[in-house]
Amino acid sequence: MPGGNPSSPHGEGRAALAALEGSRELAARALGVEPAEIVFTSSGTEAVNLGLLGAGRRLPQSAPIVSWAAEHQSVLGALRRLQLEGRPVEILPVDAGGFNTEADLPGAALVSTSLANNEVGTVQPRVHAPEALLHLDACQGPQWLDVDLRGVGLASFSGAKLGAGRGGLLFVRAGVRLDPLQYGGPQERGRRAGREDVASAVAVATALAVCREQRALRREAVKPLAVRLRRALSAAGGRLTGAEPVLPNHASAVFPGTRGEDLLMALDLAGIAASSGSVCASGSLDPSHVLLAMGLSLEDSLCGLRLTAGWSTGEAEIGRAEAILRSVLPALVQP
Amino acid sequence: MPGGNPSSPHGEGRAALAALEGSRELAARALGVEPAEIVFTSSGTEAVNLGLLGAGRRLPQSAPIVSWAAEHQSVLGALRRLQLEGRPVEILPVDAGGFNTEADLPGAALVSTSLANNEVGTVQPRVHAPEALLHLDACQGPQWLDVDLRGVGLASFSGAKLGAGRGGLLFVRAGVRLDPLQYGGPQERGRRAGREDVASAVAVATALAVCREQRALRREAVKPLAVRLRRALSAAGGRLTGAEPVLPNHASAVFPGTRGEDLLMALDLAGIAASSGSVCASGSLDPSHVLLAMGLSLEDSLCGLRLTAGWSTGEAEIGRAEAILRSVLPALVQP
Repeated sequence: MPGGNPSSPHGEGRAALAALEGSRELAARALGVEPAEIVFTSSGTEAVNLGLLGAGRRLPQSAPIVSWAAEHQSVLGALRRLQLEGRPVEILPVDAGGFNTEADLPGAALVSTSLANNEVGTVQPRVHAPEALLHLDACQGPQWLDVDLRGVGLASFSGAKLGAGRGGLLFVRAGVRLDPLQYGGPQERGRRAGREDVASAVAVATALAVCREQRALRREAVKPLAVRLRRALSAAGGRLTGAEPVLPNHASAVFPGTRGEDLLMALDLAGIAASSGSVCASGSLDPSHVLLAMGLSLEDSLCGLRLTAGWSTGEAEIGRAEAILRSVLPALVQP
Repeated sequence: MPGGNPSSPHGEGRAALAALEGSRELAARALGVEPAEIVFTSSGTEAVNLGLLGAGRRLPQSAPIVSWAAEHQSVLGALRRLQLEGRPVEILPVDAGGFNTEADLPGAALVSTSLANNEVGTVQPRVHAPEALLHLDACQGPQWLDVDLRGVGLASFSGAKLGAGRGGLLFVRAGVRLDPLQYGGPQERGRRAGREDVASAVAVATALAVCREQRALRREAVKPLAVRLRRALSAAGGRLTGAEPVLPNHASAVFPGTRGEDLLMALDLAGIAASSGSVCASGSLDPSHVLLAMGLSLEDSLCGLRLTAGWSTGEAEIGRAEAILRSVLPALVQP
């Protein structure tokens, strides 16, 4: 991996620049867009914020901004910030399955939706808001779901979620202008100043290219594994969360009467890395905003558990997980 | 290096969290501050922007913000943004040596200065503005200069400049509150949402610790090398830029009648990686804002050349550089 500064004109810098721009072309091809429409960021969270704050701050102060109550905290956090800055923000409800409601949004100037919910796996319907600038939070799900950017003006991706380790990417359709989050140089066509992280750009672009090639195959392979995980959660006393269509690798449930943290600790000791609610908020004792938005009680929103299979998860690991869930969970779940 | 998410409660996540918090303690010890006062960022540019935009946006709209015309583009860019948002910003002149003028600043609410100028190496005097929140841009120079954070409220560091590859760090004195640049999770005590880059935090903290231990020794070793580089630039027809005290590893000059790009290309072909003006702006045909601020003509501001020695630069490399400068530059410099 070239270690030079892509903005430096000497040989080392040019090698870094070539790697960076090659990655931009690779990512663009994987998404079916133009290289100039790709902005590399340090994380999915930064991509979401650059898209929403960057475009939102350029809207007229009275232009309505719309999203849904179970979107990721990075989306909701950026929109709360826009609201604090004096812009009208409307957060619509989701239904009991976690689906975004009211897909018809006349009058909205900026709409933020997602490929799939990151806690309960519900795959979101496409939004039709032809007059609005549409942001697609594609941080969750691009390994499994086709990413269709028709009608989308902004789309954000997370390197961590793509298996690229770190970094992120924001698609910005030609003609969509952004106020940067940080200033200080012409990098990324003035949309993100600061020395580029070439290694993460290469990794994110490669991951997107591999996703495009492999996802159809991978999603068929993983489906039966997730079905087994969901069955195991049910059998251990869990009430499944989310609704079909669900991410093909996803299993989540609540275990009323327990606390998510206790479940995680017990599973961790037994060798399963699970999550409770949003990983971004877990570790805290806060209830899941997703489960609350889906209408679950405050108590039930504290006891979510999420298990996911990855591209490399095999039958043997699922068998081991089933055995652990069977032996660990019933003792914690007081009927 | 642990690959887990420090916000995840399972074993892999806890290992990542331990590495992250260990780095925070290491960096804090190296700077003589508290771990809670350290915010890890993706770059020096982000650290500068988080400090200035983050603190600046919380000031009353009428509070004066002050900096100098030869500061780095990330500082000037962030302040231009604050000005665009309706805040009074005053950019003071520098003198012909690149020194920040008017170190006495009554009435300023936020002042941004630096350890040393990044293009001409001039070491800046300390600013006395006891009533202001003082930001120290320490991206340039912490390998060579002691970093004294007494009286400083915010200080930014660059992983790339520290030899840590990437990443950055912002010191935020206890009690100084920031509006984040990005939202979406409680990471870095709510000051920077988004999954942490643990590897870069480890690298930045380690670099700062090594700097603290080694810089006195290193700066004595490098001084004679930089003296030789400066002599070689002079002998080849250059007019040295900057003034004493200068960074001990630094040599810079203008070559009137040439273009910085042409000098760089010629040196690059001969095997020297040099910079023209700010590396962040080089590659463009823009004149150096630093040289312009120092009173050089538009023409002279296009022909700057910067050479620096590093910790690992040896006598033999300097000898080779001298020979190259002697053979390459005179042909380009038309008397």
